[in-house]
Amino acid sequence: MPPFDVPEGDPFGPHNLPYGVFSPAGSTERTVGVRLGDHVLDAGAAALALGSPYAALLARPTLNALLAAGRTAWSDVRRALTAWVTVPSHRDSITPLMYPLSSVTLHLPFDVADYVDFYASENHARNVGRIFRPDAADSLTPNWKHLPIGYHGRSGTVVVSGTDVVRPSGQRKAPTDPEPVFGPSVRLDIEAEVGFVVGTPSPMGTSVGLADFREHVFGLCLLNDWSARDIQAWEYVPLGPFLGKSFATSVSAWITPLDALDEARVAPPGRTHPLLPYLDDSADEPGGYDLRISVALNGHVISDPPFSTMYWTAAQQLAHMTVNGAALRTGDLYGSGTVSGADERQRGSLLELTWNGREPIELPDGKRTFLEDGDEVTLSAWAPGPDGVRVGLGEVSGRVVAG
Amino acid sequence: MPPFDVPEGDPFGPHNLPYGVFSPAGSTERTVGVRLGDHVLDAGAAALALGSPYAALLARPTLNALLAAGRTAWSDVRRALTAWVTVPSHRDSITPLMYPLSSVTLHLPFDVADYVDFYASENHARNVGRIFRPDAADSLTPNWKHLPIGYHGRSGTVVVSGTDVVRPSGQRKAPTDPEPVFGPSVRLDIEAEVGFVVGTPSPMGTSVGLADFREHVFGLCLLNDWSARDIQAWEYVPLGPFLGKSFATSVSAWITPLDALDEARVAPPGRTHPLLPYLDDSADEPGGYDLRISVALNGHVISDPPFSTMYWTAAQQLAHMTVNGAALRTGDLYGSGTVSGADERQRGSLLELTWNGREPIELPDGKRTFLEDGDEVTLSAWAPGPDGVRVGLGEVSGRVVAG
Repeated sequence: MPPFDVPEGDPFGPHNLPYGVFSPAGSTERTVGVRLGDHVLDAGAAALALGSPYAALLARPTLNALLAAGRTAWSDVRRALTAWVTVPSHRDSITPLMYPLSSVTLHLPFDVADYVDFYASENHARNVGRIFRPDAADSLTPNWKHLPIGYHGRSGTVVVSGTDVVRPSGQRKAPTDPEPVFGPSVRLDIEAEVGFVVGTPSPMGTSVGLADFREHVFGLCLLNDWSARDIQAWEYVPLGPFLGKSFATSVSAWITPLDALDEARVAPPGRTHPLLPYLDDSADEPGGYDLRISVALNGHVISDPPFSTMYWTAAQQLAHMTVNGAALRTGDLYGSGTVSGADERQRGSLLELTWNGREPIELPDGKRTFLEDGDEVTLSAWAPGPDGVRVGLGEVSGRVVAG
Repeated sequence: MPPFDVPEGDPFGPHNLPYGVFSPAGSTERTVGVRLGDHVLDAGAAALALGSPYAALLARPTLNALLAAGRTAWSDVRRALTAWVTVPSHRDSITPLMYPLSSVTLHLPFDVADYVDFYASENHARNVGRIFRPDAADSLTPNWKHLPIGYHGRSGTVVVSGTDVVRPSGQRKAPTDPEPVFGPSVRLDIEAEVGFVVGTPSPMGTSVGLADFREHVFGLCLLNDWSARDIQAWEYVPLGPFLGKSFATSVSAWITPLDALDEARVAPPGRTHPLLPYLDDSADEPGGYDLRISVALNGHVISDPPFSTMYWTAAQQLAHMTVNGAALRTGDLYGSGTVSGADERQRGSLLELTWNGREPIELPDGKRTFLEDGDEVTLSAWAPGPDGVRVGLGEVSGRVVAG
């Protein structure tokens, strides 16, 4: 049954209901919104209008209270929201609280606690290995099939879709340069990723097993891990990426609850190496998600990375991240790592799509190796939903501006 | 002039006045305190009692409001506090607001935003290079003398001195192991560091030059970057340390304002390589700090790392961290990296002190290579202050407990 004015089959119908934070036109006040078609419902105001106890979680300037409320509350609130937007008797209460999406300002939907980025696509890791270590016997490092490699990023520069990205400056040193030089990055890239948002915290000194993934992770978003390849290449040995990444990480304005993605669950690729027990999901329910991502550069789709190809699942990443006793906090965000499929047109970075700049891609406005000032990158995605209806993910978009 | 009951020459006299957050005995309420000798002044209550406008910054559960207030406010508040604890007419107001240090509970003094860890001691970096890359032509990586190498750590597991550290479990793989094994770390180590606390934020897309260091950094603390060497060794290629560090980072309960350390400023070691302009401090005021650190294991001093030997200064680290346009937030914390002097007894990690376990150190209760359960590590430090009086830094201590 379509709700109110959303057409049947809309990927943002009542089967989806992603959460965000918005301000109506002319207001600077932030409040939790839920997307329905091309409208945003003021969820806190709806809760108040309908006398719902969930106003305490929804009439808020961020999603953090809802995230912290835990899985039972997540399900209860979703059930309530579904009723509000589908039961005809609510129409008169709800309709005045719906804002056209084009009229509102969308904000970063939650306060990011720690941000971690993984490296979980085998295709991506092998491509990177072939590009940078062409003489190595194996394009993967020896640890790659044994643990989901990750590192901490800068949570203070996680920004919402639509935020301009200033081209970073920094040191770089090509093999032919006698000394490092300083200037704006000349190899500015994207990484198409999926971000997972932690709701329920866990105390220091404990770990979160594979089976408890859904107790802790509320939902997911699209994530663009902007990367300055030249800065990264010079700085990253031996302690990993730093300034090549920390200037900006963009996330979609909409967080899709995992409860909306039950039909999208798929088994991850077969594992080629035995896993230690804390990572062994062979007896578990499918841990992958069938998300079909598209990467557009200035409006032209240049790649379609399939998330279902990721070797390491989000549940494995969470189990690994906490196996040493590291605490989780509400608002922790972790990125999947660049999503790259097996085909050339499924690669999630320009590094791979242009093979480190050697094979430019063609756009209507010219060739590209890495990003030019003014370029706009947009990641979008959908997943299979109930009854053949797609579940749309909110897009993440950003334009490069000169520094 | 000694204040009230603090003896002349006390390293925590009125020339020092570090800030912390405490709860009096029997209370769970947190408030900003200032250390004077072996007492803590309830600074917010003092401000209220004396009708000071700084109550808005001090009658708070964390230092964040004070940190955010900026350099002029930091100086003004410090001047006011100095008067409160030294002018005899305030004695009757102030004395009831002083608590014996031994009676209070000390808390993490500020909300940590992003945590970054550097690698700025040449002696440490060379020791690590010699231990792990004995065949390399240079014990330093090619970038080391050109930029302060750093990476992001986990801010959610920064804990205050006195917090037990649970021995982390994780994957490790010795060269002789055919496959990785899982279990409690068998090479648990410390890193003696100094942490710098950012007060004034900076917007994304801008950088903070060397000359603006004091506008942004409020003060410093001691920091123990606990490290599981076996976990780190297996995981860190190619994206850097992750679970080998993220289980715990301990900081002292007291933040020493930079205004208390003017007499401790020293020139850093001579630079052997020319620096790019954004890092070139050759024409600036001295950027080093003469902090004399001691490392005690179960009460026995095993090392005295001199902070004055650090190749990269805190001002250079801040300039580097933001040169790509990364934003600063109030509460950002960055560690100097392990402090190691040139002498064997000045090394800041057990990795170096025992040369990766090959040369155990002798303690009254037996030999040590890496940490055993029950071991307690305490870092303490002092700096030269006015008129030959020392400025004491608050200690950072932690005990290892079995997982």
